[in-house]
Amino acid sequence: MSSPTSTGTGQPASGHVTLIGGGPGAHDLITVRGMNRLRAADVIVADHLGPTDQLDQLCDLSGKEVIDASKLPYGKQMAQEKINELLITHARAGRTVARLKGGDPYVFGRGFEELVACREAGIQCEVVPGVTSAVSVPAAADVPVTQRGVVHSFTVVSGHVPPGHPKSLVDYDALARTGGTLVVIMGVKNSPAIATALIAAGRGPETPVAVIQEGTTARERSFRGVLGGLGALISDNGVTPPAVIVIGEVAGL
Amino acid sequence: MSSPTSTGTGQPASGHVTLIGGGPGAHDLITVRGMNRLRAADVIVADHLGPTDQLDQLCDLSGKEVIDASKLPYGKQMAQEKINELLITHARAGRTVARLKGGDPYVFGRGFEELVACREAGIQCEVVPGVTSAVSVPAAADVPVTQRGVVHSFTVVSGHVPPGHPKSLVDYDALARTGGTLVVIMGVKNSPAIATALIAAGRGPETPVAVIQEGTTARERSFRGVLGGLGALISDNGVTPPAVIVIGEVAGL
Repeated sequence: MSSPTSTGTGQPASGHVTLIGGGPGAHDLITVRGMNRLRAADVIVADHLGPTDQLDQLCDLSGKEVIDASKLPYGKQMAQEKINELLITHARAGRTVARLKGGDPYVFGRGFEELVACREAGIQCEVVPGVTSAVSVPAAADVPVTQRGVVHSFTVVSGHVPPGHPKSLVDYDALARTGGTLVVIMGVKNSPAIATALIAAGRGPETPVAVIQEGTTARERSFRGVLGGLGALISDNGVTPPAVIVIGEVAGL
Repeated sequence: MSSPTSTGTGQPASGHVTLIGGGPGAHDLITVRGMNRLRAADVIVADHLGPTDQLDQLCDLSGKEVIDASKLPYGKQMAQEKINELLITHARAGRTVARLKGGDPYVFGRGFEELVACREAGIQCEVVPGVTSAVSVPAAADVPVTQRGVVHSFTVVSGHVPPGHPKSLVDYDALARTGGTLVVIMGVKNSPAIATALIAAGRGPETPVAVIQEGTTARERSFRGVLGGLGALISDNGVTPPAVIVIGEVAGL
């Protein structure tokens, strides 16, 4: 049941939503604040990413309702508007709602859409940032995204839409030329097209790459290679999502 | 004193170093794992960034030695090699060493240098990722670094070296053209030059910007404006480091 005073943060007793970044997968890579908000919640609406299967390591689930957003009866993945509706309905009923997401809510997490939906409905909404997979998953495989004297910038890009697609918002020509590390999330399927686009724009085919599947979890696997062989590295090793791809000198350190 | 079994992780009893990302500033934005490692430490070597002044909120400091790396007698900022030496010396003496850094150890944190130094000295070294300021500080000011249908990439860049400087490793021409959000850390001083370089490369002077000083702490201040007025926004408001600068449509949402 709700015990909002236990967090010591002076939150109102009911009727609000907290969007929580659950981190890359391991349950103890959530923040202390995120754990405290889970403990104070009446309802937890969880994604399939993040530490959803280890919730009992973070809080006592008795008396809480846990909803797996990916298993709700709205097709394979619950439509975003249904999730928004769920958050608002529970909050309006006076419940303390924790919305647990993988990684950070604002890194391809659609967190801002949920924040706006709640606020437009008059529901108080707080965001608790999380450890993003874009940085922590490479780290788990000993790949730093920056390194003094080697690279002073990194770009995180969603590989969900392939290069050149009418809906692509990413200029891969420019990306290839920034001189920084590229971190591609949701790019397993489109990795051959991404490698081809970057090489066509001048990034060397010998540029080191690292691919890390399910980083920070017990199922973690990682592979190193070069940009010209990225597609084969992924297919030969049977890499499946979720995986993070790192392209740049740091993958060869 | 050391109580390595209390973390339940099966770590060896002594002689190792953990590099911990302390998050953006608020003490409860460290990870649960990071907090547990602080609790298990004999020695904490802390940066001035991160939750150094709130350590007592995270662990009982009695029996621990806390070393402020910025206050050691090696000039204004302790030379990196002296820090490495300190970590190694304490670990060799059989102590459990926590190296607490601001943000994430691998996002401009020189964490990889410390990892390599420890491993070359034969010292076991673990990295605990943290919530990076590059994402969480904008979030604290309601700025998401990505937004579906608006921007599908973001670049994090160190503004420590100005554009065009011989030591610059960043191609600002390319950065201006990626189409993604730009997040500049350590860029307060060089912000006028960065804005000029981006505008010269084609980024519109009306591009929204946000500047957030000491985000997530009680001293947080944030300002919004446009790229053409970035330098004035910072100087008129007396913004001082640490601050994060966000450039892109997301700063206007």
